[in-house]
Amino acid sequence: MEPLKATEGSPQKGKDVKSRLTELRGRLREIHDLQAAAALLGWDQRTYMPPGGAGARAQQIGTLQRLAHEKFTDPAIGRLLDELRPYEESLPYDSDDASLIRVTRRDYERAIRIPPAFKDEFDGNAAITYQVWTRARAEDDFAAVQPYLEKTLELSRQYAAFFPEAEHLIDPLIAIVDEGITGAYLTQLFAELQASLIPMVRAIVGQPEPDDSCLHQHFPADRQLAFGLQVIRRIGYDLDRGREDLSEHPITTTIALDDVRITTRVRENYLPGALFGSLHEAGHAIYEQNIRKELEGTPLGRGATYGVHESQSRLWENLVGRSRAFWEFFYPQLQAVFPDQLGRVPVDTFYRAINRVKPGFFRVEADEVTYSLHCAMRFQLEVDLLDGRVAVRDLPEVWRERFHQTFGFAPTTDRDGVLQEMNWYCGRIGGLYQHFTLGNLMSVLWFEAAAQAHSEIEAEMAHGEFGTLRNWLAQTIHTHGRKFTIPELIDRTVGGPLTSSAYLRYLKRKYGELYGVSFQ
Amino acid sequence: MEPLKATEGSPQKGKDVKSRLTELRGRLREIHDLQAAAALLGWDQRTYMPPGGAGARAQQIGTLQRLAHEKFTDPAIGRLLDELRPYEESLPYDSDDASLIRVTRRDYERAIRIPPAFKDEFDGNAAITYQVWTRARAEDDFAAVQPYLEKTLELSRQYAAFFPEAEHLIDPLIAIVDEGITGAYLTQLFAELQASLIPMVRAIVGQPEPDDSCLHQHFPADRQLAFGLQVIRRIGYDLDRGREDLSEHPITTTIALDDVRITTRVRENYLPGALFGSLHEAGHAIYEQNIRKELEGTPLGRGATYGVHESQSRLWENLVGRSRAFWEFFYPQLQAVFPDQLGRVPVDTFYRAINRVKPGFFRVEADEVTYSLHCAMRFQLEVDLLDGRVAVRDLPEVWRERFHQTFGFAPTTDRDGVLQEMNWYCGRIGGLYQHFTLGNLMSVLWFEAAAQAHSEIEAEMAHGEFGTLRNWLAQTIHTHGRKFTIPELIDRTVGGPLTSSAYLRYLKRKYGELYGVSFQ
Repeated sequence: MEPLKATEGSPQKGKDVKSRLTELRGRLREIHDLQAAAALLGWDQRTYMPPGGAGARAQQIGTLQRLAHEKFTDPAIGRLLDELRPYEESLPYDSDDASLIRVTRRDYERAIRIPPAFKDEFDGNAAITYQVWTRARAEDDFAAVQPYLEKTLELSRQYAAFFPEAEHLIDPLIAIVDEGITGAYLTQLFAELQASLIPMVRAIVGQPEPDDSCLHQHFPADRQLAFGLQVIRRIGYDLDRGREDLSEHPITTTIALDDVRITTRVRENYLPGALFGSLHEAGHAIYEQNIRKELEGTPLGRGATYGVHESQSRLWENLVGRSRAFWEFFYPQLQAVFPDQLGRVPVDTFYRAINRVKPGFFRVEADEVTYSLHCAMRFQLEVDLLDGRVAVRDLPEVWRERFHQTFGFAPTTDRDGVLQEMNWYCGRIGGLYQHFTLGNLMSVLWFEAAAQAHSEIEAEMAHGEFGTLRNWLAQTIHTHGRKFTIPELIDRTVGGPLTSSAYLRYLKRKYGELYGVSFQ
Repeated sequence: MEPLKATEGSPQKGKDVKSRLTELRGRLREIHDLQAAAALLGWDQRTYMPPGGAGARAQQIGTLQRLAHEKFTDPAIGRLLDELRPYEESLPYDSDDASLIRVTRRDYERAIRIPPAFKDEFDGNAAITYQVWTRARAEDDFAAVQPYLEKTLELSRQYAAFFPEAEHLIDPLIAIVDEGITGAYLTQLFAELQASLIPMVRAIVGQPEPDDSCLHQHFPADRQLAFGLQVIRRIGYDLDRGREDLSEHPITTTIALDDVRITTRVRENYLPGALFGSLHEAGHAIYEQNIRKELEGTPLGRGATYGVHESQSRLWENLVGRSRAFWEFFYPQLQAVFPDQLGRVPVDTFYRAINRVKPGFFRVEADEVTYSLHCAMRFQLEVDLLDGRVAVRDLPEVWRERFHQTFGFAPTTDRDGVLQEMNWYCGRIGGLYQHFTLGNLMSVLWFEAAAQAHSEIEAEMAHGEFGTLRNWLAQTIHTHGRKFTIPELIDRTVGGPLTSSAYLRYLKRKYGELYGVSFQ
């Protein structure tokens, strides 16, 4: 047999589209497998790893991530993407192949902007800053972590500078997790939210406080967990393709689309923690479990963006899990599990208790009404830090001032203020808070769109049936994986740009009714 | 500053030994991290992975192993090893650096003999054969797996042929796991063992059977596990650097030298399974936990060979765990855990029960006296298969014949015969059984050497103290990791070649006493 001859000058020319796609997919699959292994190592680190494993584990995860990054920034990937451009342009925008090539190119072009030496410095600073923060927080000692946070800010600015075409420094940092969303858009969005929510919170705080003492009793951990598991199974988290374990901070980890795990934590003296935590993580997990299997092993085979992910967790946690219809079905079951604690507590008292609005220091414990105000303040601080309007050393004080402007009181310690959560101490400032609020907005939009398309959804919820809602989400959002950005998804599902109007309308209606107040 | 100039023709020449060693260690560390990740994926597969994860998991492990192999066979490693040879030769044989270079070279030279395409075929055949075997065993259908086993035999021969300098086809297959041991040596060893053990078994079978009904009662799983955990912690398995979980087949998995995990399984109607299984695995784990940390991340940072590993597991399971001294301390505790089941059973009855000799079909359930006879038969079959004296299609029949020759009876099904265990159905024939017997031999040799060096060991055991024994093993065997082959280790510890004499003497003394028989 004659060997195939390469035509002059181009050894690639003989290759056809199919073989190039196969090569691209093979390379992406290998990278994906490395990332999946790193994900399992991370899950194990938080669940079952014995204390002795900690040192080697950080190194092992680092090696896998570095190899994945090396393989993804291989110029061969760029060449394949270039060669596949005519094919991509010949296909519908939302086809699997066009989306694969488009999204992979976007990721690739972002990845190769970052010089390896910078990445090493960036990752190294992240690791050490996190370590220093854990001590600084325990000791309420912001000064200890301040130089590391200054370095983090400097590196975040340097990162952004690799994308000089961006309108604002924060844009490339947001794009890491929420492609298609800009700082300018968020600045306006958060200002609008503050204008509506701050007066709402003031009006609510002026009302009599609902009694939530029913939630502060002794609830044995094993029964809390068993009940939570039953609930998330019922909403559609598939435990043959997932599992729930305990960890200090709840997380969702995707090892494969058929192996999506969640964790939760339990406090025996407060009922909502584990229950709503499980619902939240199950929302993330149901999203990943319903991505089309054909997208697995590629950059399309996961949730679209952090904001979209958060929309799914918040939808199940709040729109479903804190609704009256949901508890019509589940409250008698919960009473049966905790007869001494809840047997004589009416469902309405319970419903009001789990929806109590009470401004507090901590974002992660915030109710639906105050939640986005915490995010607004943090987003604005990110912009001000990046722009140099706020210096890191002044952050504790500025935090207190702005918190006071928002809520009318302020934390006296930094542990309850700027040190309260890890986010900024993990190596980056910028792009760390918008997704929670974007998620809130989209959770309402999509829940209402589903309810409009299927008027039976609320009645089904009251009977413990969630299939119609879940299928709508699966077919409208989940199935596409990472094909679309937030603006694209909004445009495809409900039309128009993403605004705060539906979200604010929802909050005003629900909390107006709960507190007997009529909001503007 | 002037840049360093490379001298003529050799860009390597400027490099010194230190930078080469650093580069070699860096490359080996990366490979090690990939293997550690694959190990965790394997552990998770057997313990917590939800059923849905199975498909992706096989692919993920395959990718990690392939990458590790690619990186290990990189010619740069061969070059570094060549460049480091003068340095190696300037050092004592047993120094860390000389051992690292020597053992890495041995592994490297073995690895590069195997063409990548052959490796892919070999690994692919292993995966499919194992799958077919699980069905074939369930359905007692040897014919279903026969063609795959024929392919396995052919591939095993081809593998061996990549080492044409070997005296016998089985030698390169043994060297994969027990470097320094040859087929010729084992042929003689197993013949000697059969000559002694077959008459021993016949003599024992002629005696009245000890009553082991005390072991066949209902023992709740949670109490079995709690007791077992207490025992293995006491012998020195460090649970801050390990953990015990449940799995279908007990395994030990090293994720890092400070993260060595074991699994066990429990049968509620038979006490010894979980207990001795845990002791066995803890023996493996204690070995790895006591390897010097300086060797971690290199080919030296694990157990020396499979045979040496098995010596440690068998030592704790049998020499310690089935000894009278051990139960002097632990039996009252066991009685306290199971007062209804064992409260009125004297320790001597229990001791005789756990040491009952009873020929049976299954190697994994065999007692100390019959165990090596199962291995002898399998080793001889491996040789005969490789030499073509036995054909795969005749294996079921030949199995029955040889089993009958050994034990005087034979299984009627292949499920109880040639299909009983996975070993040959995992891609290779040859080198799969010698290590169990080598382990038995060395377990006795080293236990006796320790007891000779420290006469207090037996008295300590009777008081539940194991520190002297464990420290002797740690300092004499464990600490060296993979520095030495079996012959080297035997020579360094007890002198001379490895023979069966101490092992047979031990069996004759222990079982002569138990059964009131005087063996030749």
